[in-house]
Amino acid sequence: MGIMANSLLTDASRRLDRALKYVIISEDAAERLKAPKASLKVSIPVRMDDGSLRVFEGYRVHFDDTRGPTKGGIRFHPQVSLDEVQSLAFWMTFKCAALNLPFGGAKGGITLNPKELSKAELERLSRGYVDAIANFIGPDIDIPAPDVYTNPMIMGWMMDQYSIIRQQRSPAVITGKPVALGGSLGRATATGTGAFYVLEAMMAQLSDQPGNAGKTVAVQGFGNAGSIVARHLFEAGYTIVAVSDSRGGIYTPL
Amino acid sequence: MGIMANSLLTDASRRLDRALKYVIISEDAAERLKAPKASLKVSIPVRMDDGSLRVFEGYRVHFDDTRGPTKGGIRFHPQVSLDEVQSLAFWMTFKCAALNLPFGGAKGGITLNPKELSKAELERLSRGYVDAIANFIGPDIDIPAPDVYTNPMIMGWMMDQYSIIRQQRSPAVITGKPVALGGSLGRATATGTGAFYVLEAMMAQLSDQPGNAGKTVAVQGFGNAGSIVARHLFEAGYTIVAVSDSRGGIYTPL
Amino acid sequence: MGIMANSLLTDASRRLDRALKYVIISEDAAERLKAPKASLKVSIPVRMDDGSLRVFEGYRVHFDDTRGPTKGGIRFHPQVSLDEVQSLAFWMTFKCAALNLPFGGAKGGITLNPKELSKAELERLSRGYVDAIANFIGPDIDIPAPDVYTNPMIMGWMMDQYSIIRQQRSPAVITGKPVALGGSLGRATATGTGAFYVLEAMMAQLSDQPGNAGKTVAVQGFGNAGSIVARHLFEAGYTIVAVSDSRGGIYTPL
Amino acid sequence: MGIMANSLLTDASRRLDRALKYVIISEDAAERLKAPKASLKVSIPVRMDDGSLRVFEGYRVHFDDTRGPTKGGIRFHPQVSLDEVQSLAFWMTFKCAALNLPFGGAKGGITLNPKELSKAELERLSRGYVDAIANFIGPDIDIPAPDVYTNPMIMGWMMDQYSIIRQQRSPAVITGKPVALGGSLGRATATGTGAFYVLEAMMAQLSDQPGNAGKTVAVQGFGNAGSIVARHLFEAGYTIVAVSDSRGGIYTPL
Amino acid sequence: MGIMANSLLTDASRRLDRALKYVIISEDAAERLKAPKASLKVSIPVRMDDGSLRVFEGYRVHFDDTRGPTKGGIRFHPQVSLDEVQSLAFWMTFKCAALNLPFGGAKGGITLNPKELSKAELERLSRGYVDAIANFIGPDIDIPAPDVYTNPMIMGWMMDQYSIIRQQRSPAVITGKPVALGGSLGRATATGTGAFYVLEAMMAQLSDQPGNAGKTVAVQGFGNAGSIVARHLFEAGYTIVAVSDSRGGIYTPL
Amino acid sequence: MGIMANSLLTDASRRLDRALKYVIISEDAAERLKAPKASLKVSIPVRMDDGSLRVFEGYRVHFDDTRGPTKGGIRFHPQVSLDEVQSLAFWMTFKCAALNLPFGGAKGGITLNPKELSKAELERLSRGYVDAIANFIGPDIDIPAPDVYTNPMIMGWMMDQYSIIRQQRSPAVITGKPVALGGSLGRATATGTGAFYVLEAMMAQLSDQPGNAGKTVAVQGFGNAGSIVARHLFEAGYTIVAVSDSRGGIYTPL
Repeated sequence: MGIMANSLLTDASRRLDRALKYVIISEDAAERLKAPKASLKVSIPVRMDDGSLRVFEGYRVHFDDTRGPTKGGIRFHPQVSLDEVQSLAFWMTFKCAALNLPFGGAKGGITLNPKELSKAELERLSRGYVDAIANFIGPDIDIPAPDVYTNPMIMGWMMDQYSIIRQQRSPAVITGKPVALGGSLGRATATGTGAFYVLEAMMAQLSDQPGNAGKTVAVQGFGNAGSIVARHLFEAGYTIVAVSDSRGGIYTPL
Repeated sequence: MGIMANSLLTDASRRLDRALKYVIISEDAAERLKAPKASLKVSIPVRMDDGSLRVFEGYRVHFDDTRGPTKGGIRFHPQVSLDEVQSLAFWMTFKCAALNLPFGGAKGGITLNPKELSKAELERLSRGYVDAIANFIGPDIDIPAPDVYTNPMIMGWMMDQYSIIRQQRSPAVITGKPVALGGSLGRATATGTGAFYVLEAMMAQLSDQPGNAGKTVAVQGFGNAGSIVARHLFEAGYTIVAVSDSRGGIYTPL
Repeated sequence: MGIMANSLLTDASRRLDRALKYVIISEDAAERLKAPKASLKVSIPVRMDDGSLRVFEGYRVHFDDTRGPTKGGIRFHPQVSLDEVQSLAFWMTFKCAALNLPFGGAKGGITLNPKELSKAELERLSRGYVDAIANFIGPDIDIPAPDVYTNPMIMGWMMDQYSIIRQQRSPAVITGKPVALGGSLGRATATGTGAFYVLEAMMAQLSDQPGNAGKTVAVQGFGNAGSIVARHLFEAGYTIVAVSDSRGGIYTPL
Repeated sequence: MGIMANSLLTDASRRLDRALKYVIISEDAAERLKAPKASLKVSIPVRMDDGSLRVFEGYRVHFDDTRGPTKGGIRFHPQVSLDEVQSLAFWMTFKCAALNLPFGGAKGGITLNPKELSKAELERLSRGYVDAIANFIGPDIDIPAPDVYTNPMIMGWMMDQYSIIRQQRSPAVITGKPVALGGSLGRATATGTGAFYVLEAMMAQLSDQPGNAGKTVAVQGFGNAGSIVARHLFEAGYTIVAVSDSRGGIYTPL
Repeated sequence: MGIMANSLLTDASRRLDRALKYVIISEDAAERLKAPKASLKVSIPVRMDDGSLRVFEGYRVHFDDTRGPTKGGIRFHPQVSLDEVQSLAFWMTFKCAALNLPFGGAKGGITLNPKELSKAELERLSRGYVDAIANFIGPDIDIPAPDVYTNPMIMGWMMDQYSIIRQQRSPAVITGKPVALGGSLGRATATGTGAFYVLEAMMAQLSDQPGNAGKTVAVQGFGNAGSIVARHLFEAGYTIVAVSDSRGGIYTPL
Repeated sequence: MGIMANSLLTDASRRLDRALKYVIISEDAAERLKAPKASLKVSIPVRMDDGSLRVFEGYRVHFDDTRGPTKGGIRFHPQVSLDEVQSLAFWMTFKCAALNLPFGGAKGGITLNPKELSKAELERLSRGYVDAIANFIGPDIDIPAPDVYTNPMIMGWMMDQYSIIRQQRSPAVITGKPVALGGSLGRATATGTGAFYVLEAMMAQLSDQPGNAGKTVAVQGFGNAGSIVARHLFEAGYTIVAVSDSRGGIYTPL
């Protein structure tokens, strides 16, 4: 919330303005897409392993829920800010609508470097985040999911904490849980697999050349999404010439 | 949320840092007073009398609820911003604590010029604000009150809307209601009367001169607070030499 | 509730008495079918566009919920009365049971001429009706639907108002919503199409003559039900010789 | 609900119309006092001691709750009808308002001759009535009380049944409970004592003669109210010349 | 809860210890399987037909709900004890897990000889049991079912009582209801049919002899389970040489 | 739950039987005092500081709630058992009734040696206990309090955890909280002061000798109760000749 605090959301809104020129849409609907329905910022006190108390900043934003409960991931990252979370919630709204899913768009996150916390501290932080936003999420309100640096274990803690608060089993409050706790098969690779399908569909339109042999790919990011895309592309005949993650990259020219 | 977005809250925090040097307080408690517990920003769609839809920005911030449910007014003003609401919630925390009330601090507001709306539009806006924050307030969570440009009628609408949502009479959700709906006697003049008492206590310390005759006063603002203070001061023997409000002022030298 | 107030319900009960002679049913069950389980009459204050307040009478009746949550439409009509609503709830009970649906029977209505209200007034009336009966309906209690002079837009307002009261998306509280808000495909023509199927089944039993050519039909009412039946009959080869609605009729002899 | 079904309520409304001529009241408020806010009629199936099932008709009416949760007794009597209950709820509204209590007006009843039921049947009926109206009453919605042919034991059963439904002790849902279960001291004689106070106040205005010696009284009804009034009058020096109840009367001329 | 009170559960735990040697399982998970998650013992006061009050002991135990809401029958039997219910809840946990159902294990029971109670007393006992454990069961918490000496009628009473407490239709709270109230087809014979399938699978492994002709069977117990198994075995070609129930047995040698 | 498991409760019941001979009480009431209304035993998994998981046994028993929500302490002690908790809940029922308080009797406890746990482990255990019994306690259900080896800090954790689960400030769920969090003044010394008052009342009956000078006292236990009693006795003129706690004693003859 400093200088140019809302540049990401402002940028997203500008793209929407350009898009709206090509569709027929009521003025009311356009007006309601200009700002998020609700943005929540919370302070999460966490008892660290050394006995000290540290307070983390967390966010959850509902952009629009006209089409159904909102849906969107929770990100653990040092650069998480209200502006970023709002703009990602904006994009989730359109992603869900583009696929005609009965969901609106949301996003959440906590500003931290998760690599600096022990597993026990991460668990207490994850449960504390749910304590702070429990009335803002729910199977018929807003359903979080894993995102950058969050994983099934974290989703499991969050689901368990929400179940404690509601005093009943509530697996529907969050997706991306471990399969044994009600998670979906294929969820772990879904983002990467989806990206691969989109890329294949684009290639079918953009490329004249039949087959993938000889087509080279550079993959930026090698986590939950990038590593899966890379595998799919490799299996489909593409040649992966470069991969990189936050710590470095490898480039192998043909 | 643009340039220098948090200057009011930052300023408030700096004052706290200076004050903390004079008290013995645990590091944990000091850490938790650095940021609001929860800040909610909402979009409130309102159907205007001319049939168009206008979306207003509303806020509600809980600064700290260690001592009890949070308490603080709702402001209707064109300059309402998240920064202002957060800093006012900060001050409410310390005001309640200083008087040893079992309440924490909160604040809320909607960014608008209430003079531009019809009574029917104001009612729909007030009810829409409650629809948007209903799970964030409550007799045991956070209890709003009137503030700049809000009044008993608006509190009554908000209480009624909250009662509809809970499907039971809920007068305890808000203070400053009309007396006939459960409001407190003396509430309308409480802010001004309180200011008068504080001023009297200060004068007892600052002035050597007995009696108030000959002491002159200039009153800035002549609404719910200023006009009441002026009357009390006049009745206590002070001489009011100047009054002003947002549209002008009068100065009558002795 | 004046002279001969319950003649419709009394008439319905008499038909039941005659029918009960042909079935084996416990005395307890027969006893419980004599009167509605619960009948609710409410006053709905509505702020009109001219600033005045008008109070409308609304009803909702659960006839029997042994087989599941009750189901039945909401009617906006000047002749709506408790007697009519009770008798229609009676018939809904048997309609659901005859088709072995896991639903009981209900009905609702508001006494008004909807053509005299502006769209904004209709919206406020529809939302006010839900405010007044919110604890009497619900996905597991009683699920309303459109009926005479109510439509998907009104169902959408009611669903939205119920969702505000519950503070979560609740599309399951009402059927007949716009498809974009979770309504069912085919709902708009379902009543008329159902009537056509029944008529076809009856003709198969009553008529010796194969084919529909030469069979003439007069259609009374030309709204949600009648106009759809007429189209189906026309497409199936019947000859429509007359249609009428509340304002008049047309008769074209062969 | 037969011929002249609403004569009691109509009569009450006419008295209101006459009274309204003498007060300054907004048109809106007058409009809202013309009909009850909500009237609920329920069927209560009761298993009788002989194993048969009998279905009773019960009512509960909220007339107006502007001033607070509604308040009013529950009557067990063969003549209980919706019209009677509505008109009594009307009067409760004005009785509470006249004494400036923060309560609105309500009333309830079951159509039966309680003398024909065993104690066990009465208990099952009382609990079944609460099952049927549980969402229509509550400490912040509507608070019943004893009335004709109902007593502390019945209030205790109803409180207990409501507590079972809410799964927590809920003594505030009903007044007139046995003192050991949270009832108020003096409640049993409150109606009669109140009547005595009113009579004393009237006599002070109507009678020139000091003292009560020689003043004769005839008391009609000798139950919860009449017998208490008679005792108070006797102790205050009046001469009771006649008493009567539903089975007969005694007249002893001076 | 007297001498050797926990022998059944202790025995079950010992079997688990032996089994755990053959699987790889985290120490945490093993630790949590040593004792039930929650055990509830309640006193159920029941008004008997002769007017006296009798208090029954009831139990409900959740053994483990990691995999989902717990599931298990309710037993009415004079030998029901906390130890028995705990050990049966233990076995339900493993039965559900072995079939990969998304359910944990539970069990319940009331200590009584149901043959000594009238139908009306049984109904009041069944409803009283639900009153006492209502917050301990639920579609997302723990879902009971019929067991020894309980049947669809009792499940129906329990479902109805739970629905009264929740003030909405709640068929999902209990399985084994009458089909007309939402019960499942085939439920009545499911236990026996399942036993038959298991026996067939065992015979396929244990017996060299093709076909069932000449294979003799003795069936111990001839209620909901035994009589169904016997019929299936007979239809599959086995020869039933003996059957018995709690009152005696018949043996017909080949 | 081993040999002679219920000896404490059995003993308590026998004392009741003897007492009942001296009072007139309905058979129903006596029957209901024979067994606790509800007894809950829970397993509480706690993550220890070394990363291991330990599961503790906790209890909460409601003996009788006829007179109001139940009330009773929570004990942390290695000898806590269901039998002990049930018998202490029994005594709480009679203690509350003897003083005519509108409360029933309850008790709770966890079987552990609290001196073996770190402060962080104790906090997690205390919060886990509330997670496990949250639906079994509440301001209108059952209100715990401190007892052997539990203190205001633990009550504060429990209140905070309950407030998180209910998502609102709930100080009324537990007594003995720190004064700053809504605890009562004088609570810390209440048990000891009460014992002193009782002793003074007994001495007034038992002793002929005026004044306390020369009266000697031995105090067994020197914690929350004993040390306070000792101080009161000393201040009242008694001579303390011996004190002892779990680790030893001191005896100083006159």
